[in-house]
Amino acid sequence: MGVMRLGYVHARVTDLDEARSHYGGTLGMKQVHQEQGVAYYKAWDEWDHHSVVLEEGGVGLVKLGYKVARSTDLDDFERRAAAFGCLTERMSRGENVGIGDGVRVVLPSDHVVELYHEAEFLGTETGTLNPAPFPRELVGVGVPRIDHCLITTEDPETLERFFSECLDFRSAERVVEHLDDGALLGSWMSCSNTPHDIAFIKGPNGKLHHFAYALTDWHEIKRAGGLFAMDDVPVDVGPTQHGITRGETIYFFDPSGNRNEVFSGGYMVHDDFPTITWTADQLAAGIFYIGRELNERFTSVLT
Amino acid sequence: MGVMRLGYVHARVTDLDEARSHYGGTLGMKQVHQEQGVAYYKAWDEWDHHSVVLEEGGVGLVKLGYKVARSTDLDDFERRAAAFGCLTERMSRGENVGIGDGVRVVLPSDHVVELYHEAEFLGTETGTLNPAPFPRELVGVGVPRIDHCLITTEDPETLERFFSECLDFRSAERVVEHLDDGALLGSWMSCSNTPHDIAFIKGPNGKLHHFAYALTDWHEIKRAGGLFAMDDVPVDVGPTQHGITRGETIYFFDPSGNRNEVFSGGYMVHDDFPTITWTADQLAAGIFYIGRELNERFTSVLT
Amino acid sequence: MGVMRLGYVHARVTDLDEARSHYGGTLGMKQVHQEQGVAYYKAWDEWDHHSVVLEEGGVGLVKLGYKVARSTDLDDFERRAAAFGCLTERMSRGENVGIGDGVRVVLPSDHVVELYHEAEFLGTETGTLNPAPFPRELVGVGVPRIDHCLITTEDPETLERFFSECLDFRSAERVVEHLDDGALLGSWMSCSNTPHDIAFIKGPNGKLHHFAYALTDWHEIKRAGGLFAMDDVPVDVGPTQHGITRGETIYFFDPSGNRNEVFSGGYMVHDDFPTITWTADQLAAGIFYIGRELNERFTSVLT
Amino acid sequence: MGVMRLGYVHARVTDLDEARSHYGGTLGMKQVHQEQGVAYYKAWDEWDHHSVVLEEGGVGLVKLGYKVARSTDLDDFERRAAAFGCLTERMSRGENVGIGDGVRVVLPSDHVVELYHEAEFLGTETGTLNPAPFPRELVGVGVPRIDHCLITTEDPETLERFFSECLDFRSAERVVEHLDDGALLGSWMSCSNTPHDIAFIKGPNGKLHHFAYALTDWHEIKRAGGLFAMDDVPVDVGPTQHGITRGETIYFFDPSGNRNEVFSGGYMVHDDFPTITWTADQLAAGIFYIGRELNERFTSVLT
Repeated sequence: MGVMRLGYVHARVTDLDEARSHYGGTLGMKQVHQEQGVAYYKAWDEWDHHSVVLEEGGVGLVKLGYKVARSTDLDDFERRAAAFGCLTERMSRGENVGIGDGVRVVLPSDHVVELYHEAEFLGTETGTLNPAPFPRELVGVGVPRIDHCLITTEDPETLERFFSECLDFRSAERVVEHLDDGALLGSWMSCSNTPHDIAFIKGPNGKLHHFAYALTDWHEIKRAGGLFAMDDVPVDVGPTQHGITRGETIYFFDPSGNRNEVFSGGYMVHDDFPTITWTADQLAAGIFYIGRELNERFTSVLT
Repeated sequence: MGVMRLGYVHARVTDLDEARSHYGGTLGMKQVHQEQGVAYYKAWDEWDHHSVVLEEGGVGLVKLGYKVARSTDLDDFERRAAAFGCLTERMSRGENVGIGDGVRVVLPSDHVVELYHEAEFLGTETGTLNPAPFPRELVGVGVPRIDHCLITTEDPETLERFFSECLDFRSAERVVEHLDDGALLGSWMSCSNTPHDIAFIKGPNGKLHHFAYALTDWHEIKRAGGLFAMDDVPVDVGPTQHGITRGETIYFFDPSGNRNEVFSGGYMVHDDFPTITWTADQLAAGIFYIGRELNERFTSVLT
Repeated sequence: MGVMRLGYVHARVTDLDEARSHYGGTLGMKQVHQEQGVAYYKAWDEWDHHSVVLEEGGVGLVKLGYKVARSTDLDDFERRAAAFGCLTERMSRGENVGIGDGVRVVLPSDHVVELYHEAEFLGTETGTLNPAPFPRELVGVGVPRIDHCLITTEDPETLERFFSECLDFRSAERVVEHLDDGALLGSWMSCSNTPHDIAFIKGPNGKLHHFAYALTDWHEIKRAGGLFAMDDVPVDVGPTQHGITRGETIYFFDPSGNRNEVFSGGYMVHDDFPTITWTADQLAAGIFYIGRELNERFTSVLT
Repeated sequence: MGVMRLGYVHARVTDLDEARSHYGGTLGMKQVHQEQGVAYYKAWDEWDHHSVVLEEGGVGLVKLGYKVARSTDLDDFERRAAAFGCLTERMSRGENVGIGDGVRVVLPSDHVVELYHEAEFLGTETGTLNPAPFPRELVGVGVPRIDHCLITTEDPETLERFFSECLDFRSAERVVEHLDDGALLGSWMSCSNTPHDIAFIKGPNGKLHHFAYALTDWHEIKRAGGLFAMDDVPVDVGPTQHGITRGETIYFFDPSGNRNEVFSGGYMVHDDFPTITWTADQLAAGIFYIGRELNERFTSVLT
């Protein structure tokens, strides 16, 4: 029960045709629906209607969708979010193509999150009867599924409290200024067994740092990197391994400048997971463990 | 809330010194406690007191421990198990070294499962402050954690119903005789986001097929295989990839003949995961996808 | 100077259309030429005209082609082979499509080897100007190149002496009955820096055990295995790692029953490489290091 | 026949104890000999006496040793080098510990190369009788062997001509200013089947850019990176994949500031390999294919 996962990322792109080439041709997602200026994409190992919505005009996030396990969770979360002081409203089936009723919440960081329980079922590419472990034909990277999102907020403490108190997320890892000073610089929070279903770092409200796709392993990360080069996809950082989450990673940009990530690995989180603390002086190792250096672009470019 | 994970496997071994060499020297677990004829082991990425208990005398399972998220889950699960017709009893802190109060349930398959909420915290080897992604010094394979257990039962339908109705597990994958005949031959059930926290196949009650350790990836599976050869660990099957769970695997035996597995990969399961069905005619591909052959030993040796 | 590499394998297949599906569709080689009942294939990282010739009618080897570094090597090798007692003859440009003049030698094992210096240049798929590290679009496994061949001979000592004395190959690894008894059961011989450009084991003259494709690494071996299952390619053994050569491997069969291998890894051989000896009692570990078991099929099926 | 491989790198280090910690403790080479201010190291898969010599005092290269296949090669190479205009001299057994007679050549780039045919045989760690594919116990990264060296020269054309005409190396890849302008910026040259046994780029004479260790694969590259972080080894670039050579790589520095590389992969070079050309505008992709960016440090720090 509770929030299961990041269900969809609804992002703005400056040019939909370029975005199609990236999300479809390079990443290998499948377009499942399109309307005037909006395209809906699904990855091969996802069963719901879509996981990425691309809307022409601008950059950055329109909203994030998180899917909950039970319809009754919606009332509960709405009440808790409202009590927390967030603006909430009901959304109806059909406001989002293929998505059922839900609750829309404006986070303390000004991001919009939609909670929903129902989505049109399209099924994975490999199906449910004697399935192959991966599709015989993949396009480009062939990303299996989206994984998480990293956003920025002026007030990490409050946003962490929101996700913890209202949505039952747990902090897997936290970055603090000093050990004896609770000033929170970032938090990686989980509602599942993965190290982060949402993460946020200190920065301007309402901004997107990146959203990420889960790949199988370190070898797939390298293969993705080769395809990025062939397709002229700008790479920000990587391949490398994170200290935070232990994940293997490449950061790159879609043609509109929204940062994406391919991510693999990471450990198992449980309710009793002993939260990890990083101190600011070790932040570079926390972000990029092998090189222990942050580039200016990674820390400053947001959409 | 609910069951979080397989917390410990308590197994019998014919010779404790030989077992120490295997679980300690080859697999690289750390002995955290010992008493007369019983040794307690922990893997490096686990934080609770132990995950494997080795008791001298015989082979096979003594019991399995599953850790629950809240102490109040224990009452609930006890009531549901009793209502299901299982023998249940309370267990007290200290009956298992380092483990708190709990509920002991005899499964319809005659296996004993202990549910508990508290365990002495020892912490992972990498700790919670600016941790490295893996320990600088690993012994042997250096298994990070246990993952799941596969047992046998005369009546898979009933055992599946037990885990579903009493413990809120979901079936990620099921093997049936034919599509139009519900005769269940095996079920891979999950209480987390992994494809199986328990699995069972048709066979004699009370028996162990194997218990498994999670490794990082396919490369670590190969490295483990090399160490098994150097240490004269009998390998049953692998390396290969499962159809069921997609996991990468080697099966091998401890010196007493208990089957172990090293396992990596697998997909994400959620509450709305569309359960996968395998038909018996494709079982060999389901078990060993690449080779599509079952050996006699794999299907017949149980402890 | 001297022999550079295995240049082509010319094999018989019972059905050319089925063979095309295998070598083209599953392995991803490109057909570069065809005539009545014969198809010529090239892998993406090879530059010469072809590396595999499939001739309809029967199974097994027609002949092997080894390319030499200088045209003057041909005279030298012809003279040495004749002096060794082998039947030799000159072959002319065009006897093999795309291949220049050469020398045909009947080995002491009755296999036919063609030595040649010239081949029509087609180039690799990635080219010679600012190339990508792999082709953007691969078909199936996408094998980069052929690597070696394993044949059988009634008299391994003589065949080893032939390759050493006539063609300047070196034994990287040898299997002997006992350490104090020189009876040779097999030899892995190199004319390059790889552990084997030809290998042979004791068995009937004139037979093929397998020919092999080089893949990048252990991850590609697994991916190939998945594709074999999807395409109903019979797998003989693997994935596993060899003791001999350290190579990572899957053995499988083409639709005619000729055994193929995908192979990765292995060490560097030089002229001063200290030859490795395996004793027959450790042969299973030498062949399949992880499992240390030989199956009946692997040791008995030849074409 | 001819040059077989880079046999040893003799480098200067500012502090021998710090260097021991790096080459011994982190890289896992074994010290085989030491004298006043000089330490000799061997990697586990090498059989000759040593492959790295560390001499206290300064930084950069003292000299490189290349091992030749036949003692008669020495006369030939000496004559050709002298005819090319290089200063040459004979060196005697024992001038280098464990190394036989040879020829010392001052390259047109002012680097010193020693050619030799004999070295004391110590054997690999896994031995020549029924060997395991890797040592049961590795220290740190556990590098198997050295692979190549990259040096700088004011005159790449002349140095390429030297290695081609005097030592029979072939250019696997070349970087030129423009396609229609032969100005050579760098060359990757091979005397074996690997893409480079020596490489050089335009820069000051006599300087070292890096020397490299061969690892098994991309996974080992990542593991090395983790160990570098744990041991505070400064990482320059990587992990990433080269366009040139296709190799997978991390560049890092020893405590004295000499750049090292761990390298895996790469293709097979033969005498008929079609040399690859990179144009300067694609140099960043040639060096670091995935990110296509060169950092200032990588292009400017030499020792």
